[in-house]
Amino acid sequence: MWGQSAAATELALMPVPATMTTSGGAFPLTANFTVGVTGVDSPRLDGAISRALCRLSNKTGLQLSREPTHNGTGALVIDVRSKDAPVQGIEEDESYSLNVTPQSIHLQAATSTGAMHGLETLLQLVQPEKGGFIVPGVTINDAPRFRWRGLMIDCSRHFEPIEVLERNIDAMAAVKLNVFHWHLMDDQGVRVESKRFPKLMQLGSDGKFYTQQQIRDLVAYARARGIRVVPEFEMPGHSSAWLVAYPELNSGSEPPGIRREFGISAYALDPTRETTYRFLTRFLGEMVTLFPDQYVHIGGDETPAPDWKKNPRILAFMRTHHLEDNAALQAYFNRRVLAILTHLHRRMVGWDEIFNPGLPKTVVIQSWRGVASLSKAAEQGYEGVLSAPYYLDGMQPAARHYLADPVPADTTLSVEQQKLILGGEICMWGEHLNERTIDSRIWPRSAAIAERFWSSQSVRNVDDMYRRLEPISLELESLGLKHLSSEGAGLRSLAGTEQIAPLRVFASAFEPVSFGERSSTQHTNQLTPLTGFVDAVRPDPPVRYQVEHAVAILAQSPKGHSPEVDEARALLQQFFSSTGDSVPQVEAMMESSPRLAEMRVRADQLSQLATIGNQALKYLQQDNAPADWKRASLDTIATAKKPGALVRFHFLEPLTALVNATQ
Amino acid sequence: MWGQSAAATELALMPVPATMTTSGGAFPLTANFTVGVTGVDSPRLDGAISRALCRLSNKTGLQLSREPTHNGTGALVIDVRSKDAPVQGIEEDESYSLNVTPQSIHLQAATSTGAMHGLETLLQLVQPEKGGFIVPGVTINDAPRFRWRGLMIDCSRHFEPIEVLERNIDAMAAVKLNVFHWHLMDDQGVRVESKRFPKLMQLGSDGKFYTQQQIRDLVAYARARGIRVVPEFEMPGHSSAWLVAYPELNSGSEPPGIRREFGISAYALDPTRETTYRFLTRFLGEMVTLFPDQYVHIGGDETPAPDWKKNPRILAFMRTHHLEDNAALQAYFNRRVLAILTHLHRRMVGWDEIFNPGLPKTVVIQSWRGVASLSKAAEQGYEGVLSAPYYLDGMQPAARHYLADPVPADTTLSVEQQKLILGGEICMWGEHLNERTIDSRIWPRSAAIAERFWSSQSVRNVDDMYRRLEPISLELESLGLKHLSSEGAGLRSLAGTEQIAPLRVFASAFEPVSFGERSSTQHTNQLTPLTGFVDAVRPDPPVRYQVEHAVAILAQSPKGHSPEVDEARALLQQFFSSTGDSVPQVEAMMESSPRLAEMRVRADQLSQLATIGNQALKYLQQDNAPADWKRASLDTIATAKKPGALVRFHFLEPLTALVNATQ
Repeated sequence: MWGQSAAATELALMPVPATMTTSGGAFPLTANFTVGVTGVDSPRLDGAISRALCRLSNKTGLQLSREPTHNGTGALVIDVRSKDAPVQGIEEDESYSLNVTPQSIHLQAATSTGAMHGLETLLQLVQPEKGGFIVPGVTINDAPRFRWRGLMIDCSRHFEPIEVLERNIDAMAAVKLNVFHWHLMDDQGVRVESKRFPKLMQLGSDGKFYTQQQIRDLVAYARARGIRVVPEFEMPGHSSAWLVAYPELNSGSEPPGIRREFGISAYALDPTRETTYRFLTRFLGEMVTLFPDQYVHIGGDETPAPDWKKNPRILAFMRTHHLEDNAALQAYFNRRVLAILTHLHRRMVGWDEIFNPGLPKTVVIQSWRGVASLSKAAEQGYEGVLSAPYYLDGMQPAARHYLADPVPADTTLSVEQQKLILGGEICMWGEHLNERTIDSRIWPRSAAIAERFWSSQSVRNVDDMYRRLEPISLELESLGLKHLSSEGAGLRSLAGTEQIAPLRVFASAFEPVSFGERSSTQHTNQLTPLTGFVDAVRPDPPVRYQVEHAVAILAQSPKGHSPEVDEARALLQQFFSSTGDSVPQVEAMMESSPRLAEMRVRADQLSQLATIGNQALKYLQQDNAPADWKRASLDTIATAKKPGALVRFHFLEPLTALVNATQ
Repeated sequence: MWGQSAAATELALMPVPATMTTSGGAFPLTANFTVGVTGVDSPRLDGAISRALCRLSNKTGLQLSREPTHNGTGALVIDVRSKDAPVQGIEEDESYSLNVTPQSIHLQAATSTGAMHGLETLLQLVQPEKGGFIVPGVTINDAPRFRWRGLMIDCSRHFEPIEVLERNIDAMAAVKLNVFHWHLMDDQGVRVESKRFPKLMQLGSDGKFYTQQQIRDLVAYARARGIRVVPEFEMPGHSSAWLVAYPELNSGSEPPGIRREFGISAYALDPTRETTYRFLTRFLGEMVTLFPDQYVHIGGDETPAPDWKKNPRILAFMRTHHLEDNAALQAYFNRRVLAILTHLHRRMVGWDEIFNPGLPKTVVIQSWRGVASLSKAAEQGYEGVLSAPYYLDGMQPAARHYLADPVPADTTLSVEQQKLILGGEICMWGEHLNERTIDSRIWPRSAAIAERFWSSQSVRNVDDMYRRLEPISLELESLGLKHLSSEGAGLRSLAGTEQIAPLRVFASAFEPVSFGERSSTQHTNQLTPLTGFVDAVRPDPPVRYQVEHAVAILAQSPKGHSPEVDEARALLQQFFSSTGDSVPQVEAMMESSPRLAEMRVRADQLSQLATIGNQALKYLQQDNAPADWKRASLDTIATAKKPGALVRFHFLEPLTALVNATQ
């Protein structure tokens, strides 16, 4: 088991494999490295091998042959037993075993998908040693804990170009996620091309949509990486962009145009007219030609639909059909849509709200409400996917998401009921995203969540997770992700200069506020520019955990002098001194940058907080904090906690602990 | 005229307009800013206005309406007189005039293209002032000096994804370049989809090619930004990837596979068989349906074609047709291809080598050999485009390219002959490029060259050019270019950590060596990984000019104390101290990074050079350089000049000057 071997814990695999033993020794990588394939022929696997060799070459600087041989010889031999299914299903066997000795590497898997996971593990194992690169000797037997390990990206509120999705799919594959949930339609835009209903694009998209060819290509791109694509078409609410294009589908009120405001809209499809179902039959019939996956997501959430309560025709329909309220009418709608999807050989997925008495058990519930809601569905025999704890727009630390388990240790579900929990999905809603900022909101935090979905329930050591997060984060950047470079670009743009070294240090003290706080403060809509300081800084920057961890160590031994304690103290001194020192330099930059000047109050606060931090470190060692100092410092921290400039200090809790630890 | 007004020189327009006068005052930008269009209706212009408003919103943080009105009212009124031509031609009127007063902005142009240039100028004028943003009051009348202002990107040696080309086209538009020359076929790969000749992709592309839909979309993307797309299909040499797919076209020798080596290949199309021309007729016939531009580039360079000298059938053909050597045979080939293109209503462009007695005057010569070669062609009545001084892979400073003029002040060409020089083209060859590094090789240096092609011959002040280059560089990053962020990504990958502050400082002392030096040292080929230190650092980093300029100032007044001299001295002290201080930190990083360790010798040298720099600054003020110091220092500099680790120190000349200036 992971963690039992000292050598193993020095490795930085994420997600942690099911079982791993280190066997000593290492396989040395040289320019002669080759890959041979045995078992079934799979062009998909060949492509994955080529890409892996290219990454290995980029990582090591070795010029490697990029093509596998099919005669079963090579330094790495890959043995796959089963041919690729035409469509990757939820039952796909994703297991693999990997055996590295000083002489050879052997990767075995039932499917190409499993072999691809093994290749990612292998790439993560590569380490520098004695001027070259090696793969440490290990034996790994690995398989996922959950079958459904998803990432949802909302492309409606803000359109994301195809290359953004491609690189995020690359990143998903690197951490063994296997479902890309594509949120394609919502109030702010229809992003899918329909040839049957062209007005969806003409009137409902601002010209920003994916062509059918692009969709087919992206689905193929994902499939090549072992990732299913589940499309979502929101109905009957969150559908005002549909209704802009086809007002005849509305429930009585016609939206005046594409909705720029976020939040819940009043518009909804009319569930009482047969034209609605004819439309959906034709539309979904077209969509399933683009999306071969077995599942189609119909949204189904947040449908207040006031029209349903006042449109006489709808009210009459409800009386006739004995539908006593909106919920019952929506349940009727869901059953009709389910029939359409069943006819199209698809299974239906929806958000919590579709869970309603009488719903057939073939439906899958995606829970944005939480474990309790999901468990309730499972108790009644429904399959489910957990999303509530994995909303990235809350701008929470990775640790918070990481510790939330789809099936917690204290679950009350029976073993059989637990099997109904298919897995989890990370949700990246798009209100405050654009193509520049999206990666930094998703990564590297999603790598930690991916581990939650893949690895054993018992893998819960936050310190070890953060230790492994940085190497994965760098690997993702090598894959093309922009989560580490976007901050610099944003800061340069704000400052109007390339000389942003002090501004980088300054920025490292902040995180963006949550979606909710920003929405209510700034009243954002689809046209709000997303180029502020809040957009440049990233959630859970590495230094946040480092400070938290250092304070935890120091609190145990405020005057101690072990190497660990000294290191913690030095890190904190460095953090408080460098951020404090950055303030005057950044204030000078504000003179010529009106947009940076919005941070003036936060700059003053940072200066004070940094001083408090340094004083606390001093007083901790001396036991002579002045009488008023602690109280005044805690007041300053309390003031800094208040909202301002759409960003928050990420170190206020550890700083409070530090101040409170002084005598 | 530019430069006559102090206020004008504080602006940072690039390229400099033909005429500009400042009128005092400024137009204040607010959230009420609107744009109205009068004159002709142009969806192309409407799109450009929308994009400009989006950029203005991103820059200022103001939430702006993104759509123009068509009733002629607005804070900015744009008046365009002529409808868009179906295909933008070389005779397009690109002029515009822009008048900014405190009350309103008026932009007038004959064509949408001219108006788009005016919008770019307007965006460059936007400045922070008193906590907000303004457009200074100016009157600009502007038009390009040359009609053909190109950028060539080689997508054969390494494939570049569409989004890379799109963002480079955005950047071209921002600096008023108007021809994207797309080098689509060469020995290392065919990058264009042919439905008539599918084996070109199947066998000649490694699966990396642009689909016809992608090509049409990119041509439309460029057209929307006032940029023509001239495709290049290399023939009869540089064509081995064609011949891998269709060996029946070769001159006697068949290439064994896609050529991975760079340089000149021996393979060539057979110019003596009618099958070759039937192939080209069908192939080019298909290509012109994708590329509406009036010009098609046939390459035509570097065709040693040894087969032509020994294939008996070819030799017999040459005797029959009185073709006495390879050049004559290639001229015959060119005439045949010209006939095909003429029949397709296209004009032919080729590199120097196609210039041959008897060539019809309708052909355009692109010169990679230089001004003399081009002038010779012009004297004989041929139109031409200069490229020789604009090869970016030489890794030369922007200033070098900037001062090279397609029609220098001392030209011997008559006024009529000068008109035959259509303009210039920047060449970005792809041997050592990938999608990560390409932007930093092209930008911001190409912005300076774009000014050479647009602005008056007399605009030649290098200091002023560099002053304006940084704001343009930042504007390009805001547009999505990666030229400033790729260095950090490359360094993080090499170092294996996010903590690269000292490595950034270290890297700022270096430039990549030229294409030629790297090729001969490393023996690169298409499979060489491009993720080394050399790939991370960028040519002509801003500090290179800053150091050069500071030394020039200090040399005039080594002991002076004017603000300018003090600033120069402080900059140099900062440069030498910070780079020197970075060395031990970077050496520590090398312990765990084998790839960074390749820089060890350079690190030692940097340490020594930084010490020399600081000593020189001290001795310059004191007149007491030790007797042996100067000689020893110059020896150290000479050693550092020698090739090593594929990078060079960019400050050796100024440092030499500094050492020599000591007493």
